[in-house]
Amino acid sequence: MSQMHLGVFVLGTGHHVSAWKLPDSWGNAEDLSLLQHVAKTAERGKFDLIFFADALNTGPNVHPSMMVRLEPLTLLSALAMTTSHIGLAATASATYSEPYNLARLFASLDHISGGRAAWNVVTGAFPEAALNFSRDHHPPHAQRYASATEFVQVAKGLWDSWDDGAIVMDKREGRFADTSRMHVLDHKGEFYTVKGPLNISRPPQGHPVIIQAGASDAGRALAASIAEIVFAVQQDLNAAKAFRADLRELASQSGRNPDHMKVMPGVSPIIGETEADAKAKLAMLVEMMDPKSALKVLSERLGQDLSDYPLDGPVPDLPPSSMMQGHAVTLTAMAKAKNMTLRELRDYAAAAMGHRLLVGTPEMVADGLEEWFVAGAADGFNVMPSWFPGAFDDFVDHVVPILQKRGLFRTDYTGRTLRDHLGLPRPAAPTR
Amino acid sequence: MSQMHLGVFVLGTGHHVSAWKLPDSWGNAEDLSLLQHVAKTAERGKFDLIFFADALNTGPNVHPSMMVRLEPLTLLSALAMTTSHIGLAATASATYSEPYNLARLFASLDHISGGRAAWNVVTGAFPEAALNFSRDHHPPHAQRYASATEFVQVAKGLWDSWDDGAIVMDKREGRFADTSRMHVLDHKGEFYTVKGPLNISRPPQGHPVIIQAGASDAGRALAASIAEIVFAVQQDLNAAKAFRADLRELASQSGRNPDHMKVMPGVSPIIGETEADAKAKLAMLVEMMDPKSALKVLSERLGQDLSDYPLDGPVPDLPPSSMMQGHAVTLTAMAKAKNMTLRELRDYAAAAMGHRLLVGTPEMVADGLEEWFVAGAADGFNVMPSWFPGAFDDFVDHVVPILQKRGLFRTDYTGRTLRDHLGLPRPAAPTR
Repeated sequence: MSQMHLGVFVLGTGHHVSAWKLPDSWGNAEDLSLLQHVAKTAERGKFDLIFFADALNTGPNVHPSMMVRLEPLTLLSALAMTTSHIGLAATASATYSEPYNLARLFASLDHISGGRAAWNVVTGAFPEAALNFSRDHHPPHAQRYASATEFVQVAKGLWDSWDDGAIVMDKREGRFADTSRMHVLDHKGEFYTVKGPLNISRPPQGHPVIIQAGASDAGRALAASIAEIVFAVQQDLNAAKAFRADLRELASQSGRNPDHMKVMPGVSPIIGETEADAKAKLAMLVEMMDPKSALKVLSERLGQDLSDYPLDGPVPDLPPSSMMQGHAVTLTAMAKAKNMTLRELRDYAAAAMGHRLLVGTPEMVADGLEEWFVAGAADGFNVMPSWFPGAFDDFVDHVVPILQKRGLFRTDYTGRTLRDHLGLPRPAAPTR
Repeated sequence: MSQMHLGVFVLGTGHHVSAWKLPDSWGNAEDLSLLQHVAKTAERGKFDLIFFADALNTGPNVHPSMMVRLEPLTLLSALAMTTSHIGLAATASATYSEPYNLARLFASLDHISGGRAAWNVVTGAFPEAALNFSRDHHPPHAQRYASATEFVQVAKGLWDSWDDGAIVMDKREGRFADTSRMHVLDHKGEFYTVKGPLNISRPPQGHPVIIQAGASDAGRALAASIAEIVFAVQQDLNAAKAFRADLRELASQSGRNPDHMKVMPGVSPIIGETEADAKAKLAMLVEMMDPKSALKVLSERLGQDLSDYPLDGPVPDLPPSSMMQGHAVTLTAMAKAKNMTLRELRDYAAAAMGHRLLVGTPEMVADGLEEWFVAGAADGFNVMPSWFPGAFDDFVDHVVPILQKRGLFRTDYTGRTLRDHLGLPRPAAPTR
């Protein structure tokens, strides 16, 4: 029987905007000891991966977990030393970096961690970032996806600069490297000109695992062609099934084995001994909430500043957003279906950044995951705890054992690399 | 009595081009276990810092330690977890990166390591790098220095985005950050436009320690204005004294306390039980040497391909180089003074990349360091072991105790940050 995959998606103070105010929430996104605790807990729970969000801007009203934080690649290199099996995924922009630099950082993390690196390819969801990178404006959606596609192609080419085992260190023959197994990429594309070779050996995984979260048409096309994990945002079982089926079909069309693409929607569990207990926790978080930050989360997801709309009126009809289309579409559909007010949608989105909430007992949460997994709506889930460390400890201590008992999740690691955990093949070096 | 500072400058297989061929040399620049051993040995020796070189290109004939290697910032984040006191310095180019990205990486390393980060600011010594970054050509020397000066200014401004303690996490008042202590940089310069703020708190050291190695006029001017460690290349005691005096004078002129700039020339010790023993080790390395790689090291340092010159003729008169001027000047002067052939200079440069060689007993090596330190030619040294781990183990086991007995070097750490070790003040947050 196939089993689900689990990742924990970490925002330091928790995904709920008011998480940091809870009495038992400690630390923030810069607190290494907290992040080490979360990584160890995830590994104790036999998770496939720990996954860090990122953005290249900040400001006075952003989500507290996003205001200040450690940079993901340096952070994961540190966490590689205090863990042994869990996959280590970093979000990194293909818009505001150079392919040579980023390919190197991920290759280095893959070497340091013994084959546990993954790259969540984003094109930059916050247009403010442009102003930190000597640019006048954030490139338009289509251009960001076109250049990101080329960026990933270049990164893969650079990872293949050296064939496996090209560094022979043959002391007797006096040959350090077999340079006939070194390859010059010589990429000349629309956006990038990169000669290569990269100055690091082929990563242990061949290529770090590629994650992608785009839900727009361009995002789906990119995911279908490159993503090995799709970080999806889905609220509705049937929509999630259709989304996964569509992506698998697109992947097949582009010549890929769809089983080598794991669709993992985000889900935020709030767990209590009883359902009422869980609901009370959520109510407390909503009560503690800073309304401005909460509305900003929703505004970003719907692509428009919502501060002038009446909170107790209906969710307004908005023009289609070119940012975070997945969130915009699923949240708007949910609001329509459930006839939600703007306030209700704000409170929902504030809990898990617009992802699916599961509020209840450990059994109810396990049921909610099993239902989607068995129905073919998901290959696994990115767990987005509302606060750290408590909400995640609860999940690992109380939900994971149920999933294991039901045979839905591994009871121990059987391999060492993230590709092993996910059942993904190691990309062969290209034949030349 | 003031004491000297010591850093170990690491190239994975050792600085000598044939180091990797020695029977007791193990690993290469991608071997984390070797690099962990070196870091621990340096910390056992109470070194101020461990320091990684870098470059953004590779090829079939480069120095084996430079052919493939781990990326320094990810590597040092990992080493931060397996050490507790030693400073962690990474070389990073101010030509082929973005200030926002690099400032963030270094700030993150400083947080992860509890205040042990340092940045060796380089402008790119290898013009081939340009072709890996969608550029037609490596920018000329003057432009590289002008843009690097602005780059560092932007990085410092970004590190000051948040005043110390601005993340208050006041649960009672519901205030995550005191955003009145957050500052928008709004930099608009000749090369960069960077709004800020940076999305990470002010680093534990205020700013990571700045290292600079430029020896050209532009390099000296940059060092005098920003460097807290100057990584110098010097072969001659009097030239080194004059260089240090000149730099200190320039630093004073630009309003700095010259004691806050530590001039640390590179030095490569080859240690034996007797002088003859040490010389035999060097001779063995020379004998094992790949002549092509060795000549490439010298060619790069003199700024011209030397493969067509007769090896047993004099060192040719060459036009002034715009690359690695420090090496070009000191090596040419030494060759003139000692009437060396091209072969002799090649063999010398192959041993320690053109830096000063100290070949002899532990006492002789300690004498060679003491002489320069007492004469005011150096505030300390960057030790560049010919091979790893043996040549560095020898230094820590046999030379450090002599320096300690003479009162020239610490017997234990008295602080926790790299600034503590170096006696450098923590930069105050700017008054606004």
